[in-house]
Amino acid sequence: MIIVLKPKVTDKQIKHIQDHIKKLGLKTIISKGIERTIIGVIGEEDILRIQPLEVIEGVEKVMSILKPYKLASREFKKESSVIDIGGVKIGQKEVVVIAGPCAVESLGQLKKIAKAVKKSGAEILRGGAFKPRTSPYSFQGLGEKGLEYLRKVSDTTGLPVVTEVMDPRNVDLVDKYADAFQIGARNMQNFDLLKEVGRTKKPIILKRGMSATIKDLLMSAEYILSSGNFNVILCERGIRTFEDVTRNTLDLSAVPVIKKLSHLPVIVDPSHATGNWEFVPSMACAAVASGCDGLLIEVHYNPEEALSDGIQSLKPDNFDELMKSLRKISRSVGRTI
Amino acid sequence: MIIVLKPKVTDKQIKHIQDHIKKLGLKTIISKGIERTIIGVIGEEDILRIQPLEVIEGVEKVMSILKPYKLASREFKKESSVIDIGGVKIGQKEVVVIAGPCAVESLGQLKKIAKAVKKSGAEILRGGAFKPRTSPYSFQGLGEKGLEYLRKVSDTTGLPVVTEVMDPRNVDLVDKYADAFQIGARNMQNFDLLKEVGRTKKPIILKRGMSATIKDLLMSAEYILSSGNFNVILCERGIRTFEDVTRNTLDLSAVPVIKKLSHLPVIVDPSHATGNWEFVPSMACAAVASGCDGLLIEVHYNPEEALSDGIQSLKPDNFDELMKSLRKISRSVGRTI
Amino acid sequence: MIIVLKPKVTDKQIKHIQDHIKKLGLKTIISKGIERTIIGVIGEEDILRIQPLEVIEGVEKVMSILKPYKLASREFKKESSVIDIGGVKIGQKEVVVIAGPCAVESLGQLKKIAKAVKKSGAEILRGGAFKPRTSPYSFQGLGEKGLEYLRKVSDTTGLPVVTEVMDPRNVDLVDKYADAFQIGARNMQNFDLLKEVGRTKKPIILKRGMSATIKDLLMSAEYILSSGNFNVILCERGIRTFEDVTRNTLDLSAVPVIKKLSHLPVIVDPSHATGNWEFVPSMACAAVASGCDGLLIEVHYNPEEALSDGIQSLKPDNFDELMKSLRKISRSVGRTI
Amino acid sequence: MIIVLKPKVTDKQIKHIQDHIKKLGLKTIISKGIERTIIGVIGEEDILRIQPLEVIEGVEKVMSILKPYKLASREFKKESSVIDIGGVKIGQKEVVVIAGPCAVESLGQLKKIAKAVKKSGAEILRGGAFKPRTSPYSFQGLGEKGLEYLRKVSDTTGLPVVTEVMDPRNVDLVDKYADAFQIGARNMQNFDLLKEVGRTKKPIILKRGMSATIKDLLMSAEYILSSGNFNVILCERGIRTFEDVTRNTLDLSAVPVIKKLSHLPVIVDPSHATGNWEFVPSMACAAVASGCDGLLIEVHYNPEEALSDGIQSLKPDNFDELMKSLRKISRSVGRTI
Repeated sequence: MIIVLKPKVTDKQIKHIQDHIKKLGLKTIISKGIERTIIGVIGEEDILRIQPLEVIEGVEKVMSILKPYKLASREFKKESSVIDIGGVKIGQKEVVVIAGPCAVESLGQLKKIAKAVKKSGAEILRGGAFKPRTSPYSFQGLGEKGLEYLRKVSDTTGLPVVTEVMDPRNVDLVDKYADAFQIGARNMQNFDLLKEVGRTKKPIILKRGMSATIKDLLMSAEYILSSGNFNVILCERGIRTFEDVTRNTLDLSAVPVIKKLSHLPVIVDPSHATGNWEFVPSMACAAVASGCDGLLIEVHYNPEEALSDGIQSLKPDNFDELMKSLRKISRSVGRTI
Repeated sequence: MIIVLKPKVTDKQIKHIQDHIKKLGLKTIISKGIERTIIGVIGEEDILRIQPLEVIEGVEKVMSILKPYKLASREFKKESSVIDIGGVKIGQKEVVVIAGPCAVESLGQLKKIAKAVKKSGAEILRGGAFKPRTSPYSFQGLGEKGLEYLRKVSDTTGLPVVTEVMDPRNVDLVDKYADAFQIGARNMQNFDLLKEVGRTKKPIILKRGMSATIKDLLMSAEYILSSGNFNVILCERGIRTFEDVTRNTLDLSAVPVIKKLSHLPVIVDPSHATGNWEFVPSMACAAVASGCDGLLIEVHYNPEEALSDGIQSLKPDNFDELMKSLRKISRSVGRTI
Repeated sequence: MIIVLKPKVTDKQIKHIQDHIKKLGLKTIISKGIERTIIGVIGEEDILRIQPLEVIEGVEKVMSILKPYKLASREFKKESSVIDIGGVKIGQKEVVVIAGPCAVESLGQLKKIAKAVKKSGAEILRGGAFKPRTSPYSFQGLGEKGLEYLRKVSDTTGLPVVTEVMDPRNVDLVDKYADAFQIGARNMQNFDLLKEVGRTKKPIILKRGMSATIKDLLMSAEYILSSGNFNVILCERGIRTFEDVTRNTLDLSAVPVIKKLSHLPVIVDPSHATGNWEFVPSMACAAVASGCDGLLIEVHYNPEEALSDGIQSLKPDNFDELMKSLRKISRSVGRTI
Repeated sequence: MIIVLKPKVTDKQIKHIQDHIKKLGLKTIISKGIERTIIGVIGEEDILRIQPLEVIEGVEKVMSILKPYKLASREFKKESSVIDIGGVKIGQKEVVVIAGPCAVESLGQLKKIAKAVKKSGAEILRGGAFKPRTSPYSFQGLGEKGLEYLRKVSDTTGLPVVTEVMDPRNVDLVDKYADAFQIGARNMQNFDLLKEVGRTKKPIILKRGMSATIKDLLMSAEYILSSGNFNVILCERGIRTFEDVTRNTLDLSAVPVIKKLSHLPVIVDPSHATGNWEFVPSMACAAVASGCDGLLIEVHYNPEEALSDGIQSLKPDNFDELMKSLRKISRSVGRTI
């Protein structure tokens, strides 16, 4: 930690700051420059991070040397993590495609879509049983019935299944049915939920919040990791910006940035990011070229009648075509699908 | 709902769209312009709103005529709502100041601050027992112990008390101790939590999410209202933008905008918005001048040692001075404090 | 400047960095912490600021101690600057209201509006002769004819006049007619234009760009100041965010922030910020309560027929009423209008 | 144009609105719904677009049916445009790479870099002679000397050259030396400059502004096109968001979106978008996979000593490696480099 002092700081103020830091068991080094005096602090930066040093008289600003996350950082663990969802490994040479409907609507619907996406090469099934909808008047999901369908279709097709959990009270329930949890963008900083899934052993796909920086995303991952569950997969799904022609702005630079800062795998959800099926294929291709470890794609055989997010769903035909393109691109960047 | 068709839409496509809409029990009117044909839909717009009409062949775009929220709208209820927190009325001529520490740290700390803010004119006490912290390594709040202190100090001082609830499992617990719930910015779209507090009768201060539009905020209020609880107070507390000299960007235009669109009272939290005590007084003054119904202000007698958000806390002296300014400003805009 | 080194930096790399800095005539101090080694640099920070130190091997990050602007900073000049526009002083106890139509449309229109706003208490007239319009098909302003009208009406009414200059080739022309230049938000980083107005002696109202941080705004002011013209007034007029119910998001916290960082006066433009006349009065009131030195308000007697920005223009009656409110508020914060 | 009326609109108000529209030579159709009456307008939408209809009493909101740009739209011209820069065609099967230093520093520097990038497969040279720098104290470019070097090196290497023009007064000068103009992000809405380059016949690379929507970008292109110059290439280079780990957020979805809305070619600048050479290769790969027509990449053999933007410059070796990857990816999406 570096503490920059104000131009007219007094000796008494400097002493007060030093005493404050010493009380916390840390050492200080003073360095007088031409325009500013700075105090360097030696010792565990975390102790200081939670201290509001900026309010102490004479302090101009405080600058961190280290990153605020530990367990999620590449420094903590150099080798990239590989997370296993029902036997499918994410974080290796293979780019894993997770596909399915936005919401589970019926057993028939789910089966039909699952078979289609499996045939095209998807390895994991997605589908929502609990749906976070902006409007209380929209379809809220089938709840436990939806979970049952997911399990049933997973068992029939052999595709492991991932589904969203929104409420800490439902973690055990979802745990019984799903192979992996999904934490949605709106819940990325629902810390009680993060702790709750952190207590399970199931893999967790943690989606970036709409107003979350990459650092915030890693801090939320840290909540899960520090609760004991290291099976976290990060998911870029677009952030909120002023651009409104797409639903959100897909921040693909998050892929190489996260790869540099963290050992956790990163997948990309082009469906929610663009909010429009027409733009999903090019963004899925771009995501693979950027180096992501997987994709989360919404598919529905009849988007017109979909109960949720029909606009962004690919039809099975388009999905099949996309998978062919993705295979070529993944090969061109030294990976497989 | 207005459906704009593509330039080369075929008659067959138009018929398909009309049939689709008729099946939903709505009527259509076709209007052919020079460059586009449009279909106007007559009947309950809500039925269509959840339909992904954009994916139907021949549709270029779909435009809503009505607002997606009902119960929260000024059209639904013309007179401004007045919400009662433990006897203090919010939404009338009087601007209500809610003050207290960010986090409850001890009984002594809370008492001391409560007495100070009461003396200066605050009418409601705030204080966090459950704290949503970005880092798992930061102080997470005293939990139920904190709630007990809040109750005790409320009873002693006569100040009703508001505190944040983050977990739907804690709604009943918090209900026992607090006079009003606070839903934090990070939980504005935690829909299970919204439904849960919606089932109680307690007033709810609903904070705007960092990436929430005003429409999103009203939709979240709609969740609570449609669950049966109409005692909702909206709170502007800053949104996330590219500007980083303040923690968030306080969007004061939200005050007159919400006053126009909704009957619910609006309060402003300048402490979280700016993240810096030095800017709190001017933003508090501006908020009152903009027409808000109340303020939420953090106060701590020793910010240097505060366990949470010390940087943005006013000292009791500064708070007292601010209250004097606020009184003058409120009078100048025809209100009182 | 503080240079944080990577965990595994070698002695050779450290030496290379030190040599690089010494070549620039600066001194270094090395400080080894537990997890990181840092290099403090003593001497003129500006020399280093333009060096891409981050690309040198072994460097993790570089942190500035000082602010990148000098002449615009409060440290350079402690007392607040007072700028004189045709005899009207901005930056003193009096809050100065600048009002007029968005665009000059005719001599009659301008005269009528000028008389009205003067009667209500405005002290400076605004009006655009050159209009930066998003669409090439919109009214682009009357050009020099508009400048002539502005001069004429200024002479008749005694109101000094401010108008926008967009093109460096027109600086001399506008200089002949206007009492102050306005640099619009879209040209805040049109550096050739900044240098050109910096060579004149006329006051300049510099509007914050839609995606400019306050630091960026002060850097643009620095361009003008370093060209020799110290008569700069900064103007907050809203930034671009995801919120779309208002045209831009008025960032009123910019007022106290700029007051802290700079000696230059700050005015606020609620008309462009909100883009809707209904929200202009409350934001004008809030701006004065926040401590601004002036307001820029659009007025038109017939907004329905205005050739530019009619939606955000107040009618003379509403403006008159607003001035009465502003007078009360300014008194309540120890100022006058 | 659709005009939605307020719930309690009077017949007199409706008549006033209709008369207003008829005076403009347009026809109206009234349609009474259950909750709202709407007026559809038939005729040239452009006439209405510049009218502030929202201020007329009784009007709730106004919704456009058509897009505000014409010449830039895919509807105006179905086939994709191909733009020729000194013999190199942009907008065909081949993805064109434009590379070079951020700023021209000397003849030797430029030659060395030009040779290197040509050898690796770049087809056009870039280099700045006039530099838009945030700080007045940073290197501002060599001016005409830099243009001379660009011409000389272009003639020697056979690489056509593109360079930025910032000042309308320099358009003729730059025209003498360069094969194409670049309009930088900060000048995307410098309308006088747009008109000035629009009067030439040279191709123009128009960069998206940091706070510009895709619609804004197309409107700026419309300025150039409507001035008579159709040789416009659009460039995505990142927008300003709250994420600060990269300099800007590269919005790659702009590529398919622009391809859908416009006939103009789109290129991507991953150097300015990320602001960090480490992330340039993955974003360049992603851009090609997303379907862009070209790339703009900064290269410097000694980034440590670069006078501008060294942090984001690739070294020739890294650039060469990247070109190899790009060749593979372009083949995988049916294109060439």
